[in-house]
Amino acid sequence: MDKPVILTGDRTTGPLHIGHYAGSLANRLRCQQTHEQFLLLADTQALTDNAHDPGKVRRNVIEVALDYLAVGIDPAQSTICLQSHLPALAELSMLYLNFVTVARLERNPTIKDEIRARGFGRDIPAGFLCYPAAQAADITAFKATVVPVGEDQAPLIEQTNEIVRRINATAGCPVLPEAQAVIPAAGRLPGIDGKAKMSKSGGNAIALSASADQIRSAVRAMFTDSDHLRIEDPGRVEGNVVFAYLDAFDPDPDGLAELKAHYRRGGLGDGTIKARLEEILQALLAPIRARRAELATDPGFVVEVIRQGTARARERTEATRQEVVAALGLFRL
Amino acid sequence: MDKPVILTGDRTTGPLHIGHYAGSLANRLRCQQTHEQFLLLADTQALTDNAHDPGKVRRNVIEVALDYLAVGIDPAQSTICLQSHLPALAELSMLYLNFVTVARLERNPTIKDEIRARGFGRDIPAGFLCYPAAQAADITAFKATVVPVGEDQAPLIEQTNEIVRRINATAGCPVLPEAQAVIPAAGRLPGIDGKAKMSKSGGNAIALSASADQIRSAVRAMFTDSDHLRIEDPGRVEGNVVFAYLDAFDPDPDGLAELKAHYRRGGLGDGTIKARLEEILQALLAPIRARRAELATDPGFVVEVIRQGTARARERTEATRQEVVAALGLFRL
Repeated sequence: MDKPVILTGDRTTGPLHIGHYAGSLANRLRCQQTHEQFLLLADTQALTDNAHDPGKVRRNVIEVALDYLAVGIDPAQSTICLQSHLPALAELSMLYLNFVTVARLERNPTIKDEIRARGFGRDIPAGFLCYPAAQAADITAFKATVVPVGEDQAPLIEQTNEIVRRINATAGCPVLPEAQAVIPAAGRLPGIDGKAKMSKSGGNAIALSASADQIRSAVRAMFTDSDHLRIEDPGRVEGNVVFAYLDAFDPDPDGLAELKAHYRRGGLGDGTIKARLEEILQALLAPIRARRAELATDPGFVVEVIRQGTARARERTEATRQEVVAALGLFRL
Repeated sequence: MDKPVILTGDRTTGPLHIGHYAGSLANRLRCQQTHEQFLLLADTQALTDNAHDPGKVRRNVIEVALDYLAVGIDPAQSTICLQSHLPALAELSMLYLNFVTVARLERNPTIKDEIRARGFGRDIPAGFLCYPAAQAADITAFKATVVPVGEDQAPLIEQTNEIVRRINATAGCPVLPEAQAVIPAAGRLPGIDGKAKMSKSGGNAIALSASADQIRSAVRAMFTDSDHLRIEDPGRVEGNVVFAYLDAFDPDPDGLAELKAHYRRGGLGDGTIKARLEEILQALLAPIRARRAELATDPGFVVEVIRQGTARARERTEATRQEVVAALGLFRL
């Protein structure tokens, strides 16, 4: 039990795509033996900006769990658990809201950006403004010290640690550990259209469950270098989506370096690099798709995985909650 | 089970005083048989502006419960329960925060006034801004339709009903009832110094546990009519704290009306009206004090009352939470 604890997870707003694979799932597979890993199916957090469509949030609980299992997350090694079924998380969230000011939440750069991106304006749901406190509850309830996040999410871990320090100061003892944000070296995969963010809703993603045809069409439609009109012309690698994906998925770095040099010199057509990428993606996704299809025929098994993981997580998070309550000297019946 | 449900309670920040008796406890005694009544020991809410001093919040759980039992709340008729031990309340609070905007919370007149009164400025704890959603959770979790509140608290019930309507609209069915604010006719009892608010912390209250001497001193120190210098002068009844208290506690309205007329005409000294008030308060508080002292010798009994009430309340609030989750179509394991 000396392994460091990782908390990570996904909002249940849609099936996962290859951006999730490159950005986090591959890393989770690597950490399964070296870390104690909790994967949160974040349905409660998904509601902070989807309260109008709870059906979407419900349906995607199973979809995301299927994606986890399909890529090779092993429920005997990693705990897959459902956020809404861990009452200690809500209880700690409500407690932590007393240890952070409204002004501090409003200054959070991640929240500011996301409020802008979602066009909330003045009509921010209170739950959305408060979600950094809820995220602090998630992280600390598992006593996670390692939290893999995108670059833009790092301020949320700072916010968590501020709350941790306040709780510990009020308690007069270090009841909660601080967490460290781990930002993947790879960076974020762009959408197939070249937009900065690949997203389920943006129609510019390749789902983990994509069919062979869907993969082929997506790669064909992929943005490359709009100035690279003739094969013999020099081409640009930077900002070229095909190369961004090859950087993420090509298992042969030397071959890729040669390919880039050739493309830059001229004489290498988009069709050739796309063919290479398609081959790699087809090889990566075929077994995932097959395993996902097989698992989807047995939803009872998937539910049972979530149930068992959630039971394990409930014990862990409730134990932490009780420690915090005791350390703060609150009333216990 | 057809009795209307009342939700009421007190923040556990100090022992209760006769202002609570006049404003709410007397009414709760009257409603014990006619209503199904839940009395919330609101320790979670008390933390929204006392997070720096959780010990105070803890200690006063027992103090407030003692006050309830001492005045005659019968745990076989009314359910005394501890807010922090009802996880469904935190879970519903977090859910409801998604159905209210930050702007709406900031516009709430009660919150605005209290932020000013507490001198929070920009440093409002997020939990304090959010407490109307938590109060909506408290009220709806019990499906209370009757909520006795001070006049200044009525906007909180409007806020609750707005959330109820949004939840019901999203669910497509009336899963939660709206609640009605019941404002006591009596109005708020002033402090003994004539200030609008009698408060535990203001030093201008008479505690329910006050000794005979404390009652005597408090009545002697009581603000009357600063212009009423000689007994034979006409005196003012309005704004006269002694008469405000007589209005609240004198069991003989005809006698009191005569007394007021005499005071207005002149010829009635402050000593006389104070003697009458003291007699009434001594008679009211002597049995409460005795019962309180007796109960205080058996804290195990008080804890057991809270434990049993909380178990009953947990069942009720968890049932409602599950109904809401089902009605919204969220995932259920």
